[in-house]
Amino acid sequence: MTEQPKHRETDCLIRSVATFIDEQSLIAPGAAVVVGVSGGADSVALLAILVELAARDERGYALTAAHLHHGLRESADEDEAFVKELADRWRIPLISERRDVSARAEAAGEGLEAAGRGLRYEFLTEVSTRTGAACVAVGHHADDNVETVLHRIIRGTHLHGLAGIRPARRLAGSQVMLVRPLLRARRAEIEQYCRRAGIAWRTDPTNAEVRFRRNYIRHELLGLLRDRLNPRADEAILRLAEAAADADAYLTAQADEALNVAGQAADGPPGALSLDCGLLGSQPPVIQTCAMRIALERIGVPMRTVDAEKLSELAGLLVADGRGT
Amino acid sequence: MTEQPKHRETDCLIRSVATFIDEQSLIAPGAAVVVGVSGGADSVALLAILVELAARDERGYALTAAHLHHGLRESADEDEAFVKELADRWRIPLISERRDVSARAEAAGEGLEAAGRGLRYEFLTEVSTRTGAACVAVGHHADDNVETVLHRIIRGTHLHGLAGIRPARRLAGSQVMLVRPLLRARRAEIEQYCRRAGIAWRTDPTNAEVRFRRNYIRHELLGLLRDRLNPRADEAILRLAEAAADADAYLTAQADEALNVAGQAADGPPGALSLDCGLLGSQPPVIQTCAMRIALERIGVPMRTVDAEKLSELAGLLVADGRGT
Repeated sequence: MTEQPKHRETDCLIRSVATFIDEQSLIAPGAAVVVGVSGGADSVALLAILVELAARDERGYALTAAHLHHGLRESADEDEAFVKELADRWRIPLISERRDVSARAEAAGEGLEAAGRGLRYEFLTEVSTRTGAACVAVGHHADDNVETVLHRIIRGTHLHGLAGIRPARRLAGSQVMLVRPLLRARRAEIEQYCRRAGIAWRTDPTNAEVRFRRNYIRHELLGLLRDRLNPRADEAILRLAEAAADADAYLTAQADEALNVAGQAADGPPGALSLDCGLLGSQPPVIQTCAMRIALERIGVPMRTVDAEKLSELAGLLVADGRGT
Repeated sequence: MTEQPKHRETDCLIRSVATFIDEQSLIAPGAAVVVGVSGGADSVALLAILVELAARDERGYALTAAHLHHGLRESADEDEAFVKELADRWRIPLISERRDVSARAEAAGEGLEAAGRGLRYEFLTEVSTRTGAACVAVGHHADDNVETVLHRIIRGTHLHGLAGIRPARRLAGSQVMLVRPLLRARRAEIEQYCRRAGIAWRTDPTNAEVRFRRNYIRHELLGLLRDRLNPRADEAILRLAEAAADADAYLTAQADEALNVAGQAADGPPGALSLDCGLLGSQPPVIQTCAMRIALERIGVPMRTVDAEKLSELAGLLVADGRGT
C-alpha cells in the first residue's frame, strides 16, 4: 500500500499548520524530522499533515515516525500494529520500541504518567540522535494547552508557567528541538480533519478515566466552566496564556540582561554560575524572580520541580544576600 | 450602650490588618474614614478593627459608618437596625440611606448585582464628600480576591485583571481613595475573629443561591478544585495574582513612560489624549497593550468593559496606524 493520506483542497488545517510552522520557525526546509506517533488522533493527524507538507518541493522534510510501546495495556500491541500499518501506507520509516513504563515508575518512584512522559522523551531524543534529526515533532494541541494552563493555575504557577505549552523547546541534554506544529489547533478541528481525510485513529482507553487529574480537567471541570461561567472559557484561558507568554518573554529578556551583567561582575570558577547578588538585588523584584528562574534553568534544574513559592523564596535569599555585600 | 468591641490580646488579625494598612499606606494617622458596613461578617469585623485602631493615639482615625438599605429583601430593614445598634454601641456616627436597586437595574438595563455595586459606590462616594473623608474603607478580603481572580480567568482577562482586587484605588470621579484593609485576611480568620470578639453578624440570604455566578464559584467550584486538584488551590490563585500584580506594576511603569513620550511627541488639543502612534507602535507589543489600557483609563473608560480581546485589537490598530505614519 503506497497511497498518500486523502486531503481535501478545502481543509484549512494543513494551511494553518504550515503558517504556524513558518511563523515560529519550527521546522527548516529539508530538515530531518522525527514524528512521535502514539496512534491517537493528534499524532496521526500530525504525521498526515507533515507527510503532505514534506511532499512539497519548498519544504521537503525527511520524516521518521517513532512509536513507543509502553507495555502497559494489552491494546498497546494493537496501537503498535496500527502505527506500523500507517507508516507503511505512507512510506515513512518507523522506529518502534518497547519500554516498560511500570518498571520505570517503580524504579524512579514516579507515578505512571510521569514515568511514561520521561520514557517517551528519552526515546524520542535517542531516535533523533540515531537519525541525525534536527527536531522532534509531537502532537500537543490547543486543548492540551488549555488543560495544562488550568491545571497549573490550580496547582500553583508563576507567570512563566501560566504561558503554557511552548511551540518549541530544546530537549533536555540535547541540541535537538522539540516542536509542536499543532499547538494552535483545537482537538475538534484535528478530529474533523482526520474524519474528512478518511484517517482512522486509536483511542487511549485510560483517557476516559476521570480519576486521573488530567482527565478530570478534560472531561468534567472544563464542561462545568463552559456550562456555568463562560461557553468560551477555553478561548479565555488560551488568550490569558498568550498575554502571559508575551509579558514573560519581555521580562525574561530584561532579566537575562541583568543576569549577564551580574554574572560578569561576579568572579567565580568558569563553568559554575557566579552572580553578584548586590547587583541583582538592586533590580525590581519581578526581574529578580525571573532572573532566578533563568539561572536555575541554566544550571539544569527542571522547572517542573520549582513552583512560584520556591522561586520567590530564592529571590528573597538573593536580596538578603545582596544586602549583606 | 457604650462598650468597645471585645478583643483578645492574642488575636492576631488586628495586628496583621494594622501592618497591612501601614505597608500599603492605606489610611493616614488622624484621617477621616468612611466605613462601608452591610452587616456581614467582613464589614462588621472591619468596623470593629478600625474602632480598635482609631482608639490608639498614633492612629486616631475619625470614623463614620455608612450603610446602604438596598430595598431588595424584607431582611434589609433588619440589616439596617443591626448596623444601627452596632454603631450606637461603639459610638460611631452612622449614615444610613435607602436606594432602590431594582429601579436602578431597570433604568440602567443592568443586572441586580451590577446595579447594587454601582449604587453602593455612588453612595459611599457621596458620604465621603459630605463628611470630608480622605478614604472609604470596605471589607473585601482574600477569599473575595480568589473568587474574583478565578472568575476573571474563566471569563477572560489580561495580566492587569489577573492581579485581582487592589488594596487601594481612587473612587471614580473623586479624589477619595477606596481602601481594603482586610484584603490579605481569609474569610475563616475574619469569622473566627468575630466569634472570639463576641461580635454577631448578619448573613445575606442570597449568598447561598448558587444561581449567582459568584456564589457558584464560592460554594461549588472552589470546593471541587480543592477536593480534586489541590487542597491549597486558594493560595495558589492568590500567589499567581500577586505575581501578576508585580509584573503588571513593572510593565505599567514602563508603558506609562512610553505613553508620556508618545503624548509629548503628538500635538493635539490640550485636555484630549493625543498620541504619536509611530512612537508607541515601535514599543514591544506587551508595552503597547499596557499603554492602551492606561490611555483608556486616563480618558475614563471603565476597565470592566474592556476585555483582553478588545485591548489586543486596540493595540493592533495602534500598530497599523503607527506603520502608516
